[in-house]
Amino acid sequence: MALNKKPVHGMKDIMPDEMQIRDYVTGVIKETYGKFGFTPMETPCMEDIANLSSKQGGENEKLIFKILKRGEKLKLDEAQSEADIVDFGMRYDLTVPLVRYYSNHSNELPSPFKALQIGNVWRADRPQKGRYRQFMQCDIDILGEASNLAEIELILATTTTLGRLGFKNFEIRISDRRILKAMAAYSGFAEEDYDDIFITLDKMDKIGLDGVESELAQAGYDKASIDKYLSLFRGFNDAEDKLKFIEEKLAGVLDGDVLTGFREIIESVNATKGDFFKLVFDPTLVRGMSYYTGTIFEISMPELGISCGGGGRYDKMVGRFTGKDVPACGFSIGFERIILILMENGFKVPNQSRKVAYLIEKGVSGEMLCSVIAKAQDARKDGTQVLVARMNKNKKFQKEQLTAEGYEEFVEFYKNPIKE
Amino acid sequence: MALNKKPVHGMKDIMPDEMQIRDYVTGVIKETYGKFGFTPMETPCMEDIANLSSKQGGENEKLIFKILKRGEKLKLDEAQSEADIVDFGMRYDLTVPLVRYYSNHSNELPSPFKALQIGNVWRADRPQKGRYRQFMQCDIDILGEASNLAEIELILATTTTLGRLGFKNFEIRISDRRILKAMAAYSGFAEEDYDDIFITLDKMDKIGLDGVESELAQAGYDKASIDKYLSLFRGFNDAEDKLKFIEEKLAGVLDGDVLTGFREIIESVNATKGDFFKLVFDPTLVRGMSYYTGTIFEISMPELGISCGGGGRYDKMVGRFTGKDVPACGFSIGFERIILILMENGFKVPNQSRKVAYLIEKGVSGEMLCSVIAKAQDARKDGTQVLVARMNKNKKFQKEQLTAEGYEEFVEFYKNPIKE
Repeated sequence: MALNKKPVHGMKDIMPDEMQIRDYVTGVIKETYGKFGFTPMETPCMEDIANLSSKQGGENEKLIFKILKRGEKLKLDEAQSEADIVDFGMRYDLTVPLVRYYSNHSNELPSPFKALQIGNVWRADRPQKGRYRQFMQCDIDILGEASNLAEIELILATTTTLGRLGFKNFEIRISDRRILKAMAAYSGFAEEDYDDIFITLDKMDKIGLDGVESELAQAGYDKASIDKYLSLFRGFNDAEDKLKFIEEKLAGVLDGDVLTGFREIIESVNATKGDFFKLVFDPTLVRGMSYYTGTIFEISMPELGISCGGGGRYDKMVGRFTGKDVPACGFSIGFERIILILMENGFKVPNQSRKVAYLIEKGVSGEMLCSVIAKAQDARKDGTQVLVARMNKNKKFQKEQLTAEGYEEFVEFYKNPIKE
Repeated sequence: MALNKKPVHGMKDIMPDEMQIRDYVTGVIKETYGKFGFTPMETPCMEDIANLSSKQGGENEKLIFKILKRGEKLKLDEAQSEADIVDFGMRYDLTVPLVRYYSNHSNELPSPFKALQIGNVWRADRPQKGRYRQFMQCDIDILGEASNLAEIELILATTTTLGRLGFKNFEIRISDRRILKAMAAYSGFAEEDYDDIFITLDKMDKIGLDGVESELAQAGYDKASIDKYLSLFRGFNDAEDKLKFIEEKLAGVLDGDVLTGFREIIESVNATKGDFFKLVFDPTLVRGMSYYTGTIFEISMPELGISCGGGGRYDKMVGRFTGKDVPACGFSIGFERIILILMENGFKVPNQSRKVAYLIEKGVSGEMLCSVIAKAQDARKDGTQVLVARMNKNKKFQKEQLTAEGYEEFVEFYKNPIKE
């Protein structure tokens, strides 16, 4: 029986061209984040299924690839439900595993701990163009830092990295879950309705203020609350000093320290950031994950109309593992989107070494072969990339292929030296 | 309910110290193999379960982590056996996925195709010291090269890489499955017994010639065959020119071209290899995988008594996917063992940038914070690694920790400048 040549449904093989770009981007990421003191670390790709099903992961928990129990532990005939036959699951993000890791090793780790993770995650989503069921994530997180220094460093590290990869004119949209909630509270909505209201608010960039207004009305919310809520956003849009506007409106609903700290993040980043991106306070930013407790941010590429990563503060997640909360904040780059954009822009990896192909006629053997091999080894020592290959019957096509791969120089070796 | 802090059974969290070494080794591997024209590529970590259960993987097929079907495809109440409820499996090596990939993409790939893969594989083995159920493999393979140039390049690339990582005095043991079989045929064993006989032969380094002899006798093989077989190995050990000895003995049983090509591999490698390792013809080398069709090799670290990788030629595997055989040969480095050895030897990653820690008193905020951040950003641009952190209450301990992480210099920032 012939085997299946295709990758599993929804996942993809990575071709050499793309792989070179991925390796380059990974290198820039590691080097740049390294300069900020982030240390690489890794967890296994699988986690206990209980850890992945603990309501930290929101919708992603419905998309877990689950691992069948093995050997005696698998009792298929007694199984009542899925839960009886699986023990592990493939991680759907890098945050839950990081927090487990930190909880397990905090005694051995510095405080604060600045972690860099680059790794695959898996989601059994419906595959779409450019979205696969295995994809790379790239996260930096700071655990044990309660102050807004965490946010400032995360935003600067991430934007510096994007800048080094040639991205510009992008936006970091920033807000705070506490501002989001205070605006809903100020308007008189009930706390149990917040999540639904935020789902509507999250559509602002697609349906506009009027769209949000009519969707909330249709959902049956109190007209006075809707009017008050919408007037907040309208006032915000018109305000000169937007932060001051929010500060005045939410006085009494929102702790003043929240806005002081928030303002400091914006000012510190703006003071050093250069002009290749904008940091924008956007009170319509929601970020779906329920684990966020404070600042939230997202990378927008307005020219492309897409988000390229995001993150925020999640001060309550370590406590789920240890019983003791630890402040935590993270920023994730949309690695696959970045690769896609670079590929579409025809990005070429810079600074490669000289590439030479040695083509050896089939008959070349013995001592002569030895001397060709020795010559190749010497050139490699000098930093040249040398491909040693047998000459194909169709030498012209072989050279065309190699030229497409970047080989600029060809040296041919024949059994009969006269041919040279 | 508190969540589980431990990694899943048999897998491990990788701590920052180890991760730095892993990243360094990965970098050396990619750079060195790159000089030989190997191009990185990747496949998904999961494969169709049928591809993984096709008898290519030998014993490893019993150790597959299997993925539960999802959604409507999972019919638990109708399930009779495991096969009904799983569709994918975690790859247990990188060879089967590579061959699937090559079969799927051969039209887009150069010929020969020189592939470099670094990736995790999973085996539900019983965990032991230093052996985990998720581990990194690092393979190079050449597909489409029928001549022994493939073997020569693979051995030189692998040993050059090991040399650059500081390994010396190791051995590459080399043989050929066809020599192995011819020796058994010459001795009069029946072909259906070869695999069992080779399992015994494989223990030679542990039980010696006499041990092999008595184990074969106990298994009930013909005494004349055993005697003839053992005399071959004894004669080999005593022979001056070992290859010539085998050549003369197996004349008529083994195609002469096999030994000519084999001799050429040894001579070509020896001509350029330097003196940091030995290439040794070892007719007791077996390599368990049934897919090997020709040359086989293994890295021995005699001082440590362990194997650190191996490989060989497998000319029949592509045909399992496409119906048409393509010559193929690969060499896998024992990545995890290499890391373990480096860790045990106290290996330090060379050439790191200057590491400075900025410690900021809690009260520092506003413009002063901005200026500290700006200063850090400037130093990073100049290539310095700068950690910006809030000063802990126990500053002495914090500095000790940071010193252990390699920070050589500390700059402290206080709200009240007089303290400086």
